Amino acid sequence: MLVVQKFGGTSVANIERIRAVAERVVKTAREGHKVVVVVSAMAGETDKLIDLAHQLSRNPSEREMDLLLSSGERVTSALTAIAIEELGHKAMAFTGRQMGIITDTVHTKARIEKITADRAKRVLDEGYIVVVAGFQGITEGKNDVTTLGRGGSDLSAVAIASALDADLCEIYTDVDGVYTTDPNIVPGARKLEKISYEEMLELASLGAKVLQTRSVEFAMKYEVPVVVRSSFNDNPGTLVTKEDEDMEKVVVSGVAYDKNQAKITVLGVPDRPGIAAKLFKDIASAGVVVDMIVQNVGSDGRATDISFTVPKTESRKASKLTEEIAKELGAKGVTLKEDIAKISIVGVGMRTHSGVAAQMFETLAAHGINIMMISTSEVKVSCIIDSKYTELAVRVLHDGFELAAAGRK
Amino acid sequence: MLVVQKFGGTSVANIERIRAVAERVVKTAREGHKVVVVVSAMAGETDKLIDLAHQLSRNPSEREMDLLLSSGERVTSALTAIAIEELGHKAMAFTGRQMGIITDTVHTKARIEKITADRAKRVLDEGYIVVVAGFQGITEGKNDVTTLGRGGSDLSAVAIASALDADLCEIYTDVDGVYTTDPNIVPGARKLEKISYEEMLELASLGAKVLQTRSVEFAMKYEVPVVVRSSFNDNPGTLVTKEDEDMEKVVVSGVAYDKNQAKITVLGVPDRPGIAAKLFKDIASAGVVVDMIVQNVGSDGRATDISFTVPKTESRKASKLTEEIAKELGAKGVTLKEDIAKISIVGVGMRTHSGVAAQMFETLAAHGINIMMISTSEVKVSCIIDSKYTELAVRVLHDGFELAAAGRK
Repeated sequence: MLVVQKFGGTSVANIERIRAVAERVVKTAREGHKVVVVVSAMAGETDKLIDLAHQLSRNPSEREMDLLLSSGERVTSALTAIAIEELGHKAMAFTGRQMGIITDTVHTKARIEKITADRAKRVLDEGYIVVVAGFQGITEGKNDVTTLGRGGSDLSAVAIASALDADLCEIYTDVDGVYTTDPNIVPGARKLEKISYEEMLELASLGAKVLQTRSVEFAMKYEVPVVVRSSFNDNPGTLVTKEDEDMEKVVVSGVAYDKNQAKITVLGVPDRPGIAAKLFKDIASAGVVVDMIVQNVGSDGRATDISFTVPKTESRKASKLTEEIAKELGAKGVTLKEDIAKISIVGVGMRTHSGVAAQMFETLAAHGINIMMISTSEVKVSCIIDSKYTELAVRVLHDGFELAAAGRK
Repeated sequence: MLVVQKFGGTSVANIERIRAVAERVVKTAREGHKVVVVVSAMAGETDKLIDLAHQLSRNPSEREMDLLLSSGERVTSALTAIAIEELGHKAMAFTGRQMGIITDTVHTKARIEKITADRAKRVLDEGYIVVVAGFQGITEGKNDVTTLGRGGSDLSAVAIASALDADLCEIYTDVDGVYTTDPNIVPGARKLEKISYEEMLELASLGAKVLQTRSVEFAMKYEVPVVVRSSFNDNPGTLVTKEDEDMEKVVVSGVAYDKNQAKITVLGVPDRPGIAAKLFKDIASAGVVVDMIVQNVGSDGRATDISFTVPKTESRKASKLTEEIAKELGAKGVTLKEDIAKISIVGVGMRTHSGVAAQMFETLAAHGINIMMISTSEVKVSCIIDSKYTELAVRVLHDGFELAAAGRK
């Protein structure tokens, strides 16, 4: 079996942790598997380098930032290979370039275009454990160093697993796997044995930061089986894989929340075609990512309210911009509400089970929680509520859908 | 004019120093010159990485060590480019690979085979300041990262200056230039305006650690004019260049000392052909570098004493080894003396002036300093003396050859 094992920053935070990683990797190899290891920078290193650059410039060149930031993973890959060899197993460290990871030229958030991996395949056949510096690649023409954005080592691992046609891609992190909800809020939250790519995508983008969103998309597209598990113990973790019949039997597999959004409402917008297009085009041009959008026809039939959410960090900027546009459009006014939370239930079973959304609304209502906005997808229902009810909402939904006791194992 | 400017670890030790480097570089560029900057790792970084590796393994793989250690210079090159751009000048950071620095495959002390520098030439023409990560290259076939050994950034700078046919290679360090002797011992020591490659080589290998020996050899071979100067002030520094008539007029240009050697003497060695060969072959096989060797025919004409010096760090190992060999050879015994010093006078003028060595011996004798060993080259006379006389010997020779007052400016 060929296994890709990825270790995040906390898993390689110091010499002791790197030694533990080496032991785990060598154990896997001695069980008869070929192993490719992908490592992040030691915890804190990337932030340290960013801080140095920002002391020099508020707006450093992205090409140079990539060269700078890629060094952290190189250090870890060399140290990990040295640790593996010390345990008596052959190992070879590879940079993104040596792994043949070719990306586009969008520095600091490059996309992987292809992975050649010729030399890696050869040395794997010769019995080496291959240790790859995550988070980085090079551009095709100029061979400039690129990085893949925050959490990019997850993407490196999944893409390498796909390129090598690996049997499994294990993502080692500081949590045991994917839970039905945040165990800090609901102590009875249950670890899922498996979850579909689609559900994982919804959970990741909702703020369950176990796996980087782009790496889940990549895994889904190329059907790479991914296991999320802890590098601090031997618990089995959660398998992220293709949807199967088991999964469909379960209506809701998890409850997620996100407190990092703010809600902007444009009041009394004239109900003419093209209004929404104008509004969101201008906001997008300003680089603000809009998440939920809800529009209701007003009661008088001539004016409407449009509400949408944006990341809290950009809410002031977005609100100011919206006020300017609102004036142009002849709207009555703009309100900004920052103390909100998005609560979501996720599950592929929703496709074949009706009444799920209604049950969510009833549960919230039964506990006096008012819903400000609603948005649904095939496998998700999200509600915007007052942020002070966040924990309560998560708990009553987790109970209401019986996630602790029954459900998918 | 095309200038290569190299900055060592103390010159880029922190953000303030990197900013000062950027200012100096941009000033040079704004005077109308093309500038290539070569940087070392920030002071202490390389040692930190070595320490991490040695915590994992007493004997880490050299290929992985090179990948590890090369990251320090990459960080500095990116930061320096960012600092230059912040001052409003175009800059681009290059790794050893991107600079086209091709080396042999001897990891941790690779030799430069060629430098292509195509892209660097192009962007220099486009008005960029090129910032190169020193100390590193890649192998031709496998494109593995190599490093050039301690002080290797000096070599990077000189080799790049040669490849680009630069008009000047400036080595910025924490001293003002090359002095007639150590100013800590002789306050009246004078900074030399210029010095020949050969003299510099003798001084460098004698422990005046201003320039790495291999970089001086390289500069001499390809006739690269090198200036050694301080990054902490605007003093003009010392030009290291081809020997000229001015230089030949001066008999002695500097007095050097080295306290890091130990003397081993093999007593009563039978005077047969092949004895010395056997002795030094065995010592070389053990990896011990021998510096001076002196052999005198013994007074009885049948046995001889052989003395040689080795680095103090290896004296115990070398002494033990010598005792074993001495037994085999039928010698009478072995003595080890560690409290010695090597005092040398250096100057190309010796070639055309006679009596220089005699004047040295007389000067030492006049101050009651006994000479244990003597060794000479075309441009150098070295004496081994008791280490307690080191400072005295340096002072009386510096005075005796009138280095403070007269001599070459």
